[in-house]
Amino acid sequence: MERKEFRDLAPPERAREVIAGLDLSPGTERVPLVDARERVLGERVDAGLDVPGFDRASVDGYAVRAEDTFDAGEASPVSLTHLGAVHAGEPADVAVEPGGCVEVSTGSVLPPGADAVVMVEDTETAGEAVLVRDRVAPGDRVMFAGADVAAGDRALGPGTTLTSREVGLLSALGLDEVPVRARPTVGIVSTGDELVRPGEALDSARGEIYDVNSYSVAAAVEEAGGVPRLYPHAGDDYDEMERLLREAAVECDLVLSSGSTSASAVDVIYRVIEDGGDLLLHGVAVKPGKPMLVGRLGGSAYVGLPGYPVSALTIFRTFVAPAVREAAGLPEPRTATVEGRMAVRERYAEGRLRLMPVGLVDPGPDERSAPDDLLVYPVDKGSGATTSLVEADGVVEMDPDTEYLDRGERVSVRLFSPDVRPPTLLLAGEDDPALSRLLDRVERPRHLPVGSREGLRRLREGAVDAAVVAGPTERSVESVAVASWRREWGLAVAEGAGVDGLADLVDRDCRFVNRTGASGLRTSLDDAMGELAVDRGADRRALTADVDGYGAGVRAHESPVRAVARGDADAGLALRATADRLDCPFVSLGAQPVRVLAAPARAAKPGVQTLAAAVAGGAAFDGLSGYDEASSANDETR
Amino acid sequence: MERKEFRDLAPPERAREVIAGLDLSPGTERVPLVDARERVLGERVDAGLDVPGFDRASVDGYAVRAEDTFDAGEASPVSLTHLGAVHAGEPADVAVEPGGCVEVSTGSVLPPGADAVVMVEDTETAGEAVLVRDRVAPGDRVMFAGADVAAGDRALGPGTTLTSREVGLLSALGLDEVPVRARPTVGIVSTGDELVRPGEALDSARGEIYDVNSYSVAAAVEEAGGVPRLYPHAGDDYDEMERLLREAAVECDLVLSSGSTSASAVDVIYRVIEDGGDLLLHGVAVKPGKPMLVGRLGGSAYVGLPGYPVSALTIFRTFVAPAVREAAGLPEPRTATVEGRMAVRERYAEGRLRLMPVGLVDPGPDERSAPDDLLVYPVDKGSGATTSLVEADGVVEMDPDTEYLDRGERVSVRLFSPDVRPPTLLLAGEDDPALSRLLDRVERPRHLPVGSREGLRRLREGAVDAAVVAGPTERSVESVAVASWRREWGLAVAEGAGVDGLADLVDRDCRFVNRTGASGLRTSLDDAMGELAVDRGADRRALTADVDGYGAGVRAHESPVRAVARGDADAGLALRATADRLDCPFVSLGAQPVRVLAAPARAAKPGVQTLAAAVAGGAAFDGLSGYDEASSANDETR
Repeated sequence: MERKEFRDLAPPERAREVIAGLDLSPGTERVPLVDARERVLGERVDAGLDVPGFDRASVDGYAVRAEDTFDAGEASPVSLTHLGAVHAGEPADVAVEPGGCVEVSTGSVLPPGADAVVMVEDTETAGEAVLVRDRVAPGDRVMFAGADVAAGDRALGPGTTLTSREVGLLSALGLDEVPVRARPTVGIVSTGDELVRPGEALDSARGEIYDVNSYSVAAAVEEAGGVPRLYPHAGDDYDEMERLLREAAVECDLVLSSGSTSASAVDVIYRVIEDGGDLLLHGVAVKPGKPMLVGRLGGSAYVGLPGYPVSALTIFRTFVAPAVREAAGLPEPRTATVEGRMAVRERYAEGRLRLMPVGLVDPGPDERSAPDDLLVYPVDKGSGATTSLVEADGVVEMDPDTEYLDRGERVSVRLFSPDVRPPTLLLAGEDDPALSRLLDRVERPRHLPVGSREGLRRLREGAVDAAVVAGPTERSVESVAVASWRREWGLAVAEGAGVDGLADLVDRDCRFVNRTGASGLRTSLDDAMGELAVDRGADRRALTADVDGYGAGVRAHESPVRAVARGDADAGLALRATADRLDCPFVSLGAQPVRVLAAPARAAKPGVQTLAAAVAGGAAFDGLSGYDEASSANDETR
Repeated sequence: MERKEFRDLAPPERAREVIAGLDLSPGTERVPLVDARERVLGERVDAGLDVPGFDRASVDGYAVRAEDTFDAGEASPVSLTHLGAVHAGEPADVAVEPGGCVEVSTGSVLPPGADAVVMVEDTETAGEAVLVRDRVAPGDRVMFAGADVAAGDRALGPGTTLTSREVGLLSALGLDEVPVRARPTVGIVSTGDELVRPGEALDSARGEIYDVNSYSVAAAVEEAGGVPRLYPHAGDDYDEMERLLREAAVECDLVLSSGSTSASAVDVIYRVIEDGGDLLLHGVAVKPGKPMLVGRLGGSAYVGLPGYPVSALTIFRTFVAPAVREAAGLPEPRTATVEGRMAVRERYAEGRLRLMPVGLVDPGPDERSAPDDLLVYPVDKGSGATTSLVEADGVVEMDPDTEYLDRGERVSVRLFSPDVRPPTLLLAGEDDPALSRLLDRVERPRHLPVGSREGLRRLREGAVDAAVVAGPTERSVESVAVASWRREWGLAVAEGAGVDGLADLVDRDCRFVNRTGASGLRTSLDDAMGELAVDRGADRRALTADVDGYGAGVRAHESPVRAVARGDADAGLALRATADRLDCPFVSLGAQPVRVLAAPARAAKPGVQTLAAAVAGGAAFDGLSGYDEASSANDETR
């Protein structure tokens, strides 16, 4: 099989043009009025009838001939004969003769002969007669037929997004079905032998992972106004993959695949496109997303997205979503892009457009220069990380010839979804079970569990509101301690491993799981090892070198306990709370403080204050073992 | 039956408090991941597994023991033995021995014994051997198990709105079901004998109108995150109404009714509330919406909304939607409120909070003082008008003690829906079939069909972008004519009425339907009558007094033709295009210009320019009879 050559990467503008040139529009369909909200009118709707369809009383009162009231006044009422009554929803089977009046309620048909309505407040009944104390002009308190909407009036134009108010107008016109733009159907074909659908069992030994892109891209398709259709997973069966691609091309307006990076998968896609379509573009000068494929498959369009979750979502939002919205007739929501300024300087010089994932943070009232002022910081965990999905809020485009974005430089951020809202509180530092519960009390918090040391670095850099710091720390950063608590730490130990203290760890031949140097727990453990070394007149490094696994370290606080519980280790560095929760025996080695240190200018931010109040309230610590002495403080530490 | 006395209207803040105190929250439910978008997490989600679940190769290349590469360099490659291959989705059944390497692809399980991966670009195969030209450190190009997400990590907090990125993270954690806040069910009981469901036949002689509030409020309930449930229409059967209210109270978290202004309907509601609930509030010092009822019905909450469509939607958005959102766990969208400044001065002094419907317009680049600057003008067509729903964009609150809002004063506008977007073009003036088609080419236009004279007044006032003016006009307003065309006008006549010209209208005894004085057509007709009077040496007023119906006039341009076509009139003032379209005989009396006159500062607005270009393009006039000489112009007229 011969592949077309696409030697040069296409410039991003070319990719946008090619995708805009794919016709995804499925035309117009009729939907029931009750399902019409958020849809877009496919054609103009002109009124087919008058609203109201009759001359209508606007108030409760009496229908009269206006000229009969011309002599009326507060002191000189005019007496009219009560001829009958017409209520809303009833035909007017009594006419207003000269000198007479007919009782009406709001919404009644105006009886024949009447040309105005006197408000009930301006009248008084006197036996058979009604005394009218105010004069009215013809047309007063009457809404004439067609005065609101007349048959033939332009009611709503094509392209109108239907919200509650348009639904109201359409119902006033008696329409129970509405012509709307059909939503483009977007097929998602998941490829890659290692992908497993959520809910199914995962075999990690086979390198299996859960399929992320099918679900995140499906949600992004809905956000753009399309209807996603997930196809069954073809696994490593290329015949089946080919069959699914062909089926999707028939059933959908657009077919997406992601992560088909293996040569054989790409070969299948090439073959299907060669057979019944047209390959328009292969490779775009953009980071991430270089291997993007664009083509036609029969009557459908095809785009191949990159495999990494953040890359797939970024490329979809940047290049594909505009075409889906265009087909659905939807404008990009106003909330899809926000402005901000760089919190740090970011270098770049790679010669292709960079779609840089970034996080956002509100600098708080003290630092804010405008009401909508946001700080923007790069999130670069490697595009394979799914956590980037929630640690970043959107993407900043860096031109190929931009060498750097300066700190404070203004940038535009395209959010991952129009519904993304920046966090109200941004923390970085130690992870901790009590902190996790405390954050449940804060609206849209974000905590980057990077360890105490890195948390302090980010606080100094000015990118975060506060650092969470556990144990002894060397670095000092100008900050305000807004809250603190103490936690018990030690060793999670395997039943029967014979580890009753730190000495056993050194003296016995056991497998140990440590935390990384970024963790405040590790610092406390290193210090305790130092004391043991002093006691023994030995060198600390010599001591720890004897502990299998001491030099390595895991990022997350539960991982050592879980390794012990699984039987993969004899002991692990842990918190009492974690060991207790996972039913793992625990040897206490001490207690250490955890402090929340806020940047002075951010200490007054509502998110910081809510966290401090939650600590002071104490309830988040209830039932957590090994915690005490929680307090909210406002001590300056320098 | 005894009614509780609510002599004083409650202040609006009290109404907000009472409604906030109603518990509408239905708790938590589990939904499939594919339906989770836009839902709100009901509880914290912690990771239940490591992501990845195994040490994972991040690139295509060779898994090695890092120490075996320490001597490698570009000029001095290290030769390693090729021991086998592991691909993504396969178990690693070959180990890396010292001096050996195993081929891996992106996503593969790292084979036992290896601690790093060399990129394929840095290698070369040589028979059984692989030459490595770059040194790697332990951990290079490997994502260790749990490095992305570790079991026990806090993944997402309660209250998180799920967008595409959160859906991605949840799928990475293998969750195919998610605990979300259940949406409150809101029952809508439609009352009022005159209401008919859209799609059903309407009997205007009985004063029937289509039910608007059930549908607009249902859509607003969805916008607030609730699930609307429409109950069948009870008509004037109060037993049935009582039964429906009780049924709704059992099935829903909140029951709404609207328009139950008749004493008997209110009695039913009182009885139901007395029986099984608690009346908390009756009457609020707010305009519109004074008769609002708030109470409890069994386990459900009850709010009675006013009957007029704009009032019902306004009261729902202002008082009820916050409680529905709170129960659903949704924040008010950022787009729900916009800032602007008053385009005109507005007086008020009625002693209760006024929720004033207002329209918005972008003043255009020349007049705009800030990027988001919008002009705000009151829309007061009477709250019974359904067209106010689409001619207004939202509501400005005027405090009871505010005497006036000055022109230029800054105000906050709560939009009718968060999805409402202000028009890009605001016109006022003559209505015209060609204009209606032209507006189809403009994104979100708004035309207020108030007639030529009133259009010019609004242009002078500065509230609109342009006036649409037909026929001769007296007023002169500083403006730029951006487009014009000519249209043929005359009389739509009944078959056999014997009306062949203007003289017949005067001389024969016929029923005539005229347009109001606001219309440019009427001005041309008055002028033609003046000429006829001169010819006859008569007074114009005497002449027109002889024409039955001349002095009255209808607002909409199709209404006279429709009256003739229905047989309700012998002749009507009309355009040839309308008469031809409705198959009504037509007598031509002349042609008149229609001009679009833009405010000089608004002439450059994109919406104005798009309209001018559409006129110049001419296609909107194709197939419309009686139109010619369309042109887009830029003459200043003063």
